[in-house]
Amino acid sequence: MGEHSAHSAMPALIAFDADDTLWENEIYFETAKDRFKDLLASDCDPAWTERELYETEMRNLSHFGYGIKGFTLSMVETALDLTKGAVTGQQIRQILDYGKEMLQMPIEPLPHVEEVLAHLSRTCPLMLLTKGDLFDQEAKIARSGLADHFTHIEIVSEKNEGTYAALLQRHGIQPADFCMVGNSLKSDILPVVALGGHAVYVPYYTTWLHERVEPSEAERQRYHQISHLGELPRLLAERVC
Amino acid sequence: MGEHSAHSAMPALIAFDADDTLWENEIYFETAKDRFKDLLASDCDPAWTERELYETEMRNLSHFGYGIKGFTLSMVETALDLTKGAVTGQQIRQILDYGKEMLQMPIEPLPHVEEVLAHLSRTCPLMLLTKGDLFDQEAKIARSGLADHFTHIEIVSEKNEGTYAALLQRHGIQPADFCMVGNSLKSDILPVVALGGHAVYVPYYTTWLHERVEPSEAERQRYHQISHLGELPRLLAERVC
Repeated sequence: MGEHSAHSAMPALIAFDADDTLWENEIYFETAKDRFKDLLASDCDPAWTERELYETEMRNLSHFGYGIKGFTLSMVETALDLTKGAVTGQQIRQILDYGKEMLQMPIEPLPHVEEVLAHLSRTCPLMLLTKGDLFDQEAKIARSGLADHFTHIEIVSEKNEGTYAALLQRHGIQPADFCMVGNSLKSDILPVVALGGHAVYVPYYTTWLHERVEPSEAERQRYHQISHLGELPRLLAERVC
Repeated sequence: MGEHSAHSAMPALIAFDADDTLWENEIYFETAKDRFKDLLASDCDPAWTERELYETEMRNLSHFGYGIKGFTLSMVETALDLTKGAVTGQQIRQILDYGKEMLQMPIEPLPHVEEVLAHLSRTCPLMLLTKGDLFDQEAKIARSGLADHFTHIEIVSEKNEGTYAALLQRHGIQPADFCMVGNSLKSDILPVVALGGHAVYVPYYTTWLHERVEPSEAERQRYHQISHLGELPRLLAERVC
């Protein structure tokens, strides 16, 4: 980020992704998938079930968007497909229960999150910027107890260059004054650096297959990577971003 | 609205509800419900099915919020309940298909909508303000072809006094300079007049049971009612709102 290294101030706005950046999320999907594979294990090889479920999810993404309700409907559809309609009512009810349990998953901030947000919010406006189901995300933000640290909360259906450009314009922020922090290269990092913004990548130990991308070497030069959110204040204080 | 009748200008912002105000929506839910009742007719009296489905929807509202995906999941759950788990895979697949067909429903503007929006947008900023599933609503707005008439598009998970107050504050608009147009007394009209804003009620021929309220005589005095959107420009031009 050489061209920005002379900046002498904090960004005008720091935005944080939520799922798997501020709190755990993907782990609950993984757990539900494991239970779903077990549920169908007498009909179907678990690896095959996993592949079919992913293909159903991808096929349904344009109808359902992201979120637990669409995922639950995709599990029901996959069970029908894999059993050729012979799935039992008991199994369908189990699938609905997996979905409802996910909707009530505990929202525990990841390590360092609360103190870092409390610290940074004293010197810079913070935005929570998440994609997914509006109702689910609002409920999770409320349950997280973190909402008060944020000046702005934005929930969008997709995070791409167009979304970020529109958002920055609406808030009157130049890309060079914006810093995005998140765990998805595809949704949080690459579209922001493509616009000329700053981005801090905080990898989570697992990433949903749909979000996995391999950045080019040139792209790697344009964002920072930290191993946990506790490292963010020092990175910002060193004004490298 | 006597206290506002001396106003000599258009509102600073006119907001429109979308579903059943700008385009048909409830009819697609009604059609899906009829097909669902037929699907289970050999197991269950249709009136009983309808009541059970409504109760399931209400029980699930706090988990699912509004929208087609949650409605589809509630149909699946109701079918399981009513058949004591004996629902067939074929029936479950039919229910998923009802949901997917709803997600692709045509979005045809209701009579007068296009010309009224085109006309009003020349003199006043317009907002599209709808509640429901973010992904569904964005897709419907895109399919409607109406997005360009709106300066602002806001999708919220619930429309109540708190939502309206926060929205107006964010846009720097006083309630007295705001006019909301919609078909739901509960969501579009009563919370706005409670805040001191203006509201124009455009009843649609059917209203979802959950949205039905009976306004008091005092409340009736505080909003305008028109029979279709074509009457809105004259109402605004007469500066009664």
